[in-house]
Amino acid sequence: MERLPGFRDFYPEPLPHSDVSSIEGRNFLFARWREMARRYGFAEYDAPPLEPVELYTTKSGQEIVNQLYCFTDKGNREVSLRPEITPSLARLVAAHNRHYKKPLKWFSIPQLFRYERQQKGRLREHFQFNADIIGEPTPVAEAELIALLIDSLRAFGLTSEDFRIRLSSRGAWQQFLAQNQVPPEHHESFYLVIDKIERAPREQTEQQLKSFGLSLESVDAFIENGAPTPDLEQILANLSNRGLADYVRLDYRVIRGLAYYTGVVFEAFDQKGNFRAIAGGGRYDNLVKLISNNKVDLPALGFGMGDVVLFELLKDRGLLPPLAPGLTAYCLIEDEQLREASLSLIQTLRDANVQVDYSLTPLKPDKQFKRALESHAEYTVKLERNENGTLSARLRNLASREEKRLAPSEVAQAISRRA
Amino acid sequence: MERLPGFRDFYPEPLPHSDVSSIEGRNFLFARWREMARRYGFAEYDAPPLEPVELYTTKSGQEIVNQLYCFTDKGNREVSLRPEITPSLARLVAAHNRHYKKPLKWFSIPQLFRYERQQKGRLREHFQFNADIIGEPTPVAEAELIALLIDSLRAFGLTSEDFRIRLSSRGAWQQFLAQNQVPPEHHESFYLVIDKIERAPREQTEQQLKSFGLSLESVDAFIENGAPTPDLEQILANLSNRGLADYVRLDYRVIRGLAYYTGVVFEAFDQKGNFRAIAGGGRYDNLVKLISNNKVDLPALGFGMGDVVLFELLKDRGLLPPLAPGLTAYCLIEDEQLREASLSLIQTLRDANVQVDYSLTPLKPDKQFKRALESHAEYTVKLERNENGTLSARLRNLASREEKRLAPSEVAQAISRRA
Repeated sequence: MERLPGFRDFYPEPLPHSDVSSIEGRNFLFARWREMARRYGFAEYDAPPLEPVELYTTKSGQEIVNQLYCFTDKGNREVSLRPEITPSLARLVAAHNRHYKKPLKWFSIPQLFRYERQQKGRLREHFQFNADIIGEPTPVAEAELIALLIDSLRAFGLTSEDFRIRLSSRGAWQQFLAQNQVPPEHHESFYLVIDKIERAPREQTEQQLKSFGLSLESVDAFIENGAPTPDLEQILANLSNRGLADYVRLDYRVIRGLAYYTGVVFEAFDQKGNFRAIAGGGRYDNLVKLISNNKVDLPALGFGMGDVVLFELLKDRGLLPPLAPGLTAYCLIEDEQLREASLSLIQTLRDANVQVDYSLTPLKPDKQFKRALESHAEYTVKLERNENGTLSARLRNLASREEKRLAPSEVAQAISRRA
Repeated sequence: MERLPGFRDFYPEPLPHSDVSSIEGRNFLFARWREMARRYGFAEYDAPPLEPVELYTTKSGQEIVNQLYCFTDKGNREVSLRPEITPSLARLVAAHNRHYKKPLKWFSIPQLFRYERQQKGRLREHFQFNADIIGEPTPVAEAELIALLIDSLRAFGLTSEDFRIRLSSRGAWQQFLAQNQVPPEHHESFYLVIDKIERAPREQTEQQLKSFGLSLESVDAFIENGAPTPDLEQILANLSNRGLADYVRLDYRVIRGLAYYTGVVFEAFDQKGNFRAIAGGGRYDNLVKLISNNKVDLPALGFGMGDVVLFELLKDRGLLPPLAPGLTAYCLIEDEQLREASLSLIQTLRDANVQVDYSLTPLKPDKQFKRALESHAEYTVKLERNENGTLSARLRNLASREEKRLAPSEVAQAISRRA
């Protein structure tokens, strides 16, 4: 029986000659994301992986249904596996708005889903680190959020040689469009042209811009020389105060296709340009109001960073540590007469927070030792019967090969003292 | 907009006058489960939350569909949100069987789903700690697994006063049934009667037993006086060697309704009998073979422990710690002239793995201090301009009220030395 196309199994560690994913790799990303979010004072939340389809169509319109992993449930509800968590976040915040002083700094690491019929071989799920600030209208929030994004990438050993945040603003484009007499109702379709400007043929872009009464030259010139808006200047100065200026550059080509952004937008890219965007986000001041049906009106902004591109980038840069579950001690039971006493020792060690494994059944000594090595144990520990009938323990550090003889009751402390 | 019935939102911490769940509570359970599984040398894995319906009907028959959160996807596949992870585990192990030496000790903490139409107000999802041992046919595996189950509950401060593992075996009942000439094809329906014997009216049980040619007295006598089978004796002796005998008692009334168990079965119950089973499991030696379509044949056993009953039990016993996200330091910015320098200090602290928050915008000093208290910060830190123009930092321990004046560069070390 096979798993569904587009889904991943997570084995404990990477398997040779196999493309299966590993939970150790996933946990490695999650742990650093979580740690960095906490350093920035962000609080974790989660929401259901299944939500009413309406939550997503309210935000993005009916077309989004083509990309949703959606269905009708047994109660005749139109439901969808979540394609993003931001609408759920808006729902949560609006529901208990009065309980919270603003701004809120919240994060989550949801698994997200999509289903586009035509896309074979593409993943239909991924995990995404989401961080959002709710209730702060000024650019100090953008600066705090972008600083978190930068540090979340630096946490993996990535430097300004490896990635850059490209910072932009729909506000800047709005000024440009106003100066060029493009009416507001055309702005969204204009953003879609800018969103594709790096990948689309130049002639095609030129044609499309003409329909707005714009020349490619004027757009190119704005991208090249457009001055930062006051809010972008404030963000850049703020990040500079934190010593993070090297990680950001102004780039008006970044516009983010999604219609719901209302101001500053940004994306993180690898400097070599080998990968898709590592992360992206921006300000979306209308969403909470929309989702709460006008009951709660809060400015908001956030970013999302997926596990797939980041993992590939870290692999490419040699920044992944060995991804295998660790073990502190492997207990060798070479004399079956000592199995009962060994079980008692193992229990004592586990009670003392030592990770211990052993062979459940009798096994030749050399095979037990091999298992110890294969399980990446730091130590082996073995009970031995002394001539006077008492027991002693032989504790061996597998890296240094240092060996100690101890009373069984001293083993736990000897191991915990190692740090 | 509302969430779907039967699903939970997870807010950062419990909210007063509200029944919403908290992610801090969830993370508290997950962290201890994970830690204890690792102490026992179990490796983590995960599988997709969505699987082909066939994976579950193969194991449990067509009737299971009534309980599944299942649907037809856009590619016309019959799929289901997972009601359990064991069939996925069997699939994973069978797919890479050759890579692994046996036995495998694996664990996972999946979110599971079910949808029974008639059950209003009941949760349709929960999280479950699953631990399984694959590839070991003898009772040493049961002992290791049950020891992990006991320690996973002791990890929360629960003692033998609080819970007990009720240990049973389908093998024992098979002997009883053979002695009473009940043919094997009736065993499954007999197990369903035993499964309900504690809750069903005595007369009803008596009637049902008659249909197998059995008297209620003989069944009662077997439950009361039936001797432990050799495998149960071995398990009890093994747990006794670990000092865990107090946590287990033989109880042949435990049978586990699910048809797929093949030998030893067990359940964990609170001693006061106020809650449903905390955990349950047993041996299922035929599942891997069944799921792999006879390609791989491996004995297996496992248990599952849900988050809902355990959380309620811990709450009832006063064993939940304060569930709020912590913060190490709150930076007070009382002089806006010092905001830039404060941002720089905050960055230095965060770089040094200190969790720091601050007011993004100017705020009155007393309000900032209130925010520090509300965010459960251990310290406040505040920059001050000295008469000679240099800066110093005032670090205040909010619990001890001890205050120190330091150079800004010394703050990180002063905080990290606290432990």
